[in-house]
Amino acid sequence: MHRLRHSAIIVHGGAGEHSPDAAMAGGAEDPRLEGVRRACGAGAEILGRGGSALDAVEAAVRMLEDDPLFNAGTGATLTSAGDVELDASVMDGETLRCGAVAVVKDVRNPVSLARAVMERTAHVMLAGPAASAFAREAGFPAHDNALFVTPRQRARFDTARRGGTSSKTGTVGAVARDLRGHLAAATSTGGMSMKLPGRVGDTALVGCGTYADDGLAAVSCTGHGERIIQLTLARHAADLVGQGRSAMEAAREAVALLGRRVGGDGGLVVVGPTGEVGFAHNTPSMTTAWTAADGAIVAGM
Amino acid sequence: MHRLRHSAIIVHGGAGEHSPDAAMAGGAEDPRLEGVRRACGAGAEILGRGGSALDAVEAAVRMLEDDPLFNAGTGATLTSAGDVELDASVMDGETLRCGAVAVVKDVRNPVSLARAVMERTAHVMLAGPAASAFAREAGFPAHDNALFVTPRQRARFDTARRGGTSSKTGTVGAVARDLRGHLAAATSTGGMSMKLPGRVGDTALVGCGTYADDGLAAVSCTGHGERIIQLTLARHAADLVGQGRSAMEAAREAVALLGRRVGGDGGLVVVGPTGEVGFAHNTPSMTTAWTAADGAIVAGM
Repeated sequence: MHRLRHSAIIVHGGAGEHSPDAAMAGGAEDPRLEGVRRACGAGAEILGRGGSALDAVEAAVRMLEDDPLFNAGTGATLTSAGDVELDASVMDGETLRCGAVAVVKDVRNPVSLARAVMERTAHVMLAGPAASAFAREAGFPAHDNALFVTPRQRARFDTARRGGTSSKTGTVGAVARDLRGHLAAATSTGGMSMKLPGRVGDTALVGCGTYADDGLAAVSCTGHGERIIQLTLARHAADLVGQGRSAMEAAREAVALLGRRVGGDGGLVVVGPTGEVGFAHNTPSMTTAWTAADGAIVAGM
Repeated sequence: MHRLRHSAIIVHGGAGEHSPDAAMAGGAEDPRLEGVRRACGAGAEILGRGGSALDAVEAAVRMLEDDPLFNAGTGATLTSAGDVELDASVMDGETLRCGAVAVVKDVRNPVSLARAVMERTAHVMLAGPAASAFAREAGFPAHDNALFVTPRQRARFDTARRGGTSSKTGTVGAVARDLRGHLAAATSTGGMSMKLPGRVGDTALVGCGTYADDGLAAVSCTGHGERIIQLTLARHAADLVGQGRSAMEAAREAVALLGRRVGGDGGLVVVGPTGEVGFAHNTPSMTTAWTAADGAIVAGM
């Protein structure tokens, strides 16, 4: 296969309902577009100076975890118990090494904890209080759960508790190809709002929310996690690229299957071995930013 | 495709080292063979009277969880902290519904808890203390963690803590096809011995340790979980059947890939849409029992 000598990254800030902020009524841009653009830029900057796809996707996802407008890290949705439980995973397409954490309550950047599990343990996945114990040993300071909770998410929780609807979507993620031709994927989320405590969604599951294999593609999913798990959607989309589909075709086929086979709402971003990007969603919107062929960063919903 | 009107089940008691018990030196049969034979028989009996594949695999796995000779439920390996943490998952090939639990310390039959998550919640997976809280609500009595610990596993833990080797393998599972042509898979484990607390292996992960889709196959894996996760091995083997391989060919190809691509040790059992069974392992042994074409139960290591 002809491999172009360029790097690429595509970032998503979650598939979901299009809920324009008040400012947008006056024609202003949705502030989440600026968020994914900045995260994409942080990753692209690393790739541009020869950094690894793994470093790029981690940096992009960290930025979205710290951005209170997205459902990951700070700004995450609340569980039915009213606190925040975070899931994240990361995968290196060169080596197939992967790391994941689930039900984490006190680490500011779960994507970096997932990477630490990958690099500093013999395991792929740690869940629950023991993941926090590992975090302390690995040097991640304890982060107060209340600091994750934004006024907007608290208000949504109060509405949901009074019988309003809960949102199934959210999640942030990034996939990249570096100048050496290696792929990586990372995904992070607060999960479904009003989820049961202890619920683990697709984001923490290798093959479901996240997958990367240099020989196939790198994929990060968002949406109704339970439906995504049933199809191991990230692995499925990567296999479609392996079978010859373009990244865009694979994304569209995967999201079509999600809707048709299990009635799932969601979306995904894909980068193929040559650096071509793809994305698709069957929700009203998915905030996305990517590097175009000329290196410019394009963002859209 | 021609669909034979028969049911089938294949059960495994884990891939691993062949460690014959003292009795075997005198020519006696390894007692684990009797264990998988009885579990297979329990599942076959359910299938024979028209029961579902889901009921059959759950019953077979429950029997192995309760058998102290296998690394699941009673008799599970110990973590580095010296207690037992259990993972399990189940999947229904007709509907793609699935359920999983991880890091469970106080439920005697985790496979049934996984099924309860599938049937009684909006979620696929619960992990950690919250899974126990759900178990109490769902009517599963609290089971003392010490009751899972057999003298043999305690002795192994003591050896490992003194610097002996720890075992990566174990796990029990079953896959079945019922008379209506539906498939199901279930897997349960204590995980890798001396694992870090909170470690989640392939057994709890849909697509990795367990997968079932009537249009593809049902698969249950055993072995080095971290390596199995990297390849989403259960889903991969099911896809091979979907591409036209027999259940036996798919099992052999999947285990060959496990060794070649990521250096993993393990094995798997497969049942295809017509009820043909397959199994393969790259470890010295894998305890297995299945229903032959004439309905007889065959067991082997």
